[in-house]
Amino acid sequence: MNKSLVRYIVGWVMVIIAAMLLLPMIVSIIYRESTWVYFLLVSGICALVGGVSSKFKPKNKQMYSREGYAACAITWIMLSVIGCLPFVISGEIPNFTNALFETVSGFTTTGCTILGNDIAIEDLSKGMTFWRCFTNWAGGMGILVFILAVITPFSGQSNMYLMKAESPGPVVSKLIPKLKGTAVLLYMMYIFLSVVEFLLLIVGKMPVFDAITVTFSTAGTGGFSIHNDGIAAYEGHYYWQGVITTFMVLFGLNFTVYFLIIARKFRQAIKFEEMRYYFGWFFACTFVITGVLYYKGVFQSLFDCFHHSAFQVATLLSSTGFATTNYDLWPESTKAILILVALIGACAGSTGGGLKVSRIVILLKECSKEIHTQLHPHSVKSVKMDGKPIKHEVIRSVSVYLTIFIAVFTASVLIISIDGYDFTTNFTAVLACLNNMGPGFGAVGPVCNFDGFSVLSKYVLIFDMLAGRLELLPILMVFMPSSWRSK
Amino acid sequence: MNKSLVRYIVGWVMVIIAAMLLLPMIVSIIYRESTWVYFLLVSGICALVGGVSSKFKPKNKQMYSREGYAACAITWIMLSVIGCLPFVISGEIPNFTNALFETVSGFTTTGCTILGNDIAIEDLSKGMTFWRCFTNWAGGMGILVFILAVITPFSGQSNMYLMKAESPGPVVSKLIPKLKGTAVLLYMMYIFLSVVEFLLLIVGKMPVFDAITVTFSTAGTGGFSIHNDGIAAYEGHYYWQGVITTFMVLFGLNFTVYFLIIARKFRQAIKFEEMRYYFGWFFACTFVITGVLYYKGVFQSLFDCFHHSAFQVATLLSSTGFATTNYDLWPESTKAILILVALIGACAGSTGGGLKVSRIVILLKECSKEIHTQLHPHSVKSVKMDGKPIKHEVIRSVSVYLTIFIAVFTASVLIISIDGYDFTTNFTAVLACLNNMGPGFGAVGPVCNFDGFSVLSKYVLIFDMLAGRLELLPILMVFMPSSWRSK
Repeated sequence: MNKSLVRYIVGWVMVIIAAMLLLPMIVSIIYRESTWVYFLLVSGICALVGGVSSKFKPKNKQMYSREGYAACAITWIMLSVIGCLPFVISGEIPNFTNALFETVSGFTTTGCTILGNDIAIEDLSKGMTFWRCFTNWAGGMGILVFILAVITPFSGQSNMYLMKAESPGPVVSKLIPKLKGTAVLLYMMYIFLSVVEFLLLIVGKMPVFDAITVTFSTAGTGGFSIHNDGIAAYEGHYYWQGVITTFMVLFGLNFTVYFLIIARKFRQAIKFEEMRYYFGWFFACTFVITGVLYYKGVFQSLFDCFHHSAFQVATLLSSTGFATTNYDLWPESTKAILILVALIGACAGSTGGGLKVSRIVILLKECSKEIHTQLHPHSVKSVKMDGKPIKHEVIRSVSVYLTIFIAVFTASVLIISIDGYDFTTNFTAVLACLNNMGPGFGAVGPVCNFDGFSVLSKYVLIFDMLAGRLELLPILMVFMPSSWRSK
Repeated sequence: MNKSLVRYIVGWVMVIIAAMLLLPMIVSIIYRESTWVYFLLVSGICALVGGVSSKFKPKNKQMYSREGYAACAITWIMLSVIGCLPFVISGEIPNFTNALFETVSGFTTTGCTILGNDIAIEDLSKGMTFWRCFTNWAGGMGILVFILAVITPFSGQSNMYLMKAESPGPVVSKLIPKLKGTAVLLYMMYIFLSVVEFLLLIVGKMPVFDAITVTFSTAGTGGFSIHNDGIAAYEGHYYWQGVITTFMVLFGLNFTVYFLIIARKFRQAIKFEEMRYYFGWFFACTFVITGVLYYKGVFQSLFDCFHHSAFQVATLLSSTGFATTNYDLWPESTKAILILVALIGACAGSTGGGLKVSRIVILLKECSKEIHTQLHPHSVKSVKMDGKPIKHEVIRSVSVYLTIFIAVFTASVLIISIDGYDFTTNFTAVLACLNNMGPGFGAVGPVCNFDGFSVLSKYVLIFDMLAGRLELLPILMVFMPSSWRSK
């Protein structure tokens, strides 16, 4: 392990965090709150340590996937620990575990919260509320991708390892040959979409502070809300909720599609397989749930059924986790569909979480191929995506991903079951964290929160959120001694 | 598809069923019940149709995996439909769906029941009770394996396809070079172990009829009981329950181990990897659950905690599904462990169900290898089992198996959730059927039954039981049009 290289990258990360912390400080000053001093304090220390650390370039600049994963994992742990300090020091969330849980939930764009019991979300100062929602936005596209876009610390292949460790999905597609350019493009599309959503909400006369924070949470598919009852606080504002629904779906889409549109490759964009399955899945689930809700008379009008169904499918599909209504009271069949929607999640190369649509498509295609081969042993068939055959290594790594996912899932459910909640709660709490979704069902349903878990369970769920955001490998390897050996 | 070949094999199967039906007929006559006539009637028709069908040998004896799977699937469907006729005709279980559910549950060694509400298990005549438990025993080792042992319809490779379609586990290991010999050996070990269990129960002064039926259910890891409250009816008979616990574990063990012992290859037997993981897993779970039960004071004495814990782990591990106590009331953490135990299941090459220990071991080894390769790209490592490297095709088929398993699992949960039961009930009902386990948790817990489900759900669960027993592929391909085309 090339430790000085990792130290150098983490130094840069700290500089970035220091810069990010200035934003909530400005908000605090605008609202004339005293909390600005805490942001300044943490920012200052970060800038100092990070500045020194990033000054000394490592002698050996050679980076392999091991270093990429390590840098990524440490970056995200640093991010979480530093990010929670303002909450703790200011005393707004005095308990360290709770503050860490909240910050990890923010950066990983999970959006589950421990606020709501002792401390209401509305009790936080504007600065802290802004910071809380900003973590959703910053975590959505990723910090290392941002560093790649701004400073490009190393050359070609080395950067690829960093990008690979942080980006979601089975394969990392470079949009343009240069990786730096790809990172810049990704951030530009991300900012552009965010600005459009913000403007549409402002046009709909949403208060500016609400519009900013909602945009942060939607764009990162995080799901933090500035109201205790989430998006239900906007009950009756169909326009706002419609805009939010649309953008949740858009941010869960593979960003390659936007790139194709920018590059005027419309035909390729329309034929993009993952997008087709994603939209197909979204509409199929929405219509089925609308039908069931209307049939069972959960809402009076067909429009209300459709509206709530589309919102709920969009929020779980994109792993945002906003709630407009207590879907835990919906019919069991719709809940089963929603759990499946949450399990599959969004597209690869989006800000959303979950197993990813493309992984599921690859797995199912591989199954169909394998069954075909069993029945017709002499036929030759390969698994294709977007017309191109998929490499064996990709299929294998997707299969392995599923197995590790199940293993981590199972171990987590086992540990948190010690707290004594029912199976549905434990199962969906882990699902909500590992898929960076937010609320689950039962005791962690949309009108509840995660405060009731023990400290042990909270750390397990913190681990799950990080493992989910970084797609398992980087965070798992931190705990494997063999990865830290010099040779 | 070589249809006349499939017709020929199914003909033989019907002859075997006709012979099997004579056993409960004899029991009926001994107990001077009028039900013997129903067994004779069904047996006669079977013998007639099967006798004619098996007389005409097919011209083309060439068999491929397609024909093997088809013959296997049709065999099991025939078995279930014919097997349920005595229940229906005699009017003891007048509802066809319920009778079919009960019979499929028997032959697939699942052991979940629809009896207990309108009809108590004790209401059945002795002949029907015997037949019900005998299906557990017959289904345990398999019907096609029996046919192979007795008649060997085809030569070498062709038989292998039949054996492969019915035997559980990722690879079929021939114990001795000749397949007929292997099949005979398997049945001899099966009968020997059954007889030993029966004698041990008789020595412990269990009534003969109870001892026979309990042995049938234990040997097939089926779990049907002749009492409404299952093995809890033997409360206080520690010796009986101890014998049952031991034999549940023994029947869930890979039969290759017994063969190695017979062949005096003790060193190989002790080193057999799947056995080590199987016993290790059994003892680990038993001790942890014993500890939790004692700590939480579920039972007064440590011995009682151990006793119930060992019984419950053994019954779910081997997918038998007997119950001595309502484990649905145990602490959540023990229930989570039991669900995992049930999910993993028994060894390959045993009469037990589930994903199988060796599949899990292969998947975890593959994960560990893949992570290692990611971190050290230039190292070469292969997945080994019992010291020998595992073929790529086996690893791939195991991965695919897991994916198909999850897909069938998910689809089943979605459909049966229409009935409106809670998530725990739906999840564990499907788990119980797909893993041929028996009872689940919640509304299908150990003191409940499956009668409450709708007809649609019952057929979904019937499908799951068959799919679980035949390890997915054979029963899935019945529903694929492409497998029935001539070329």
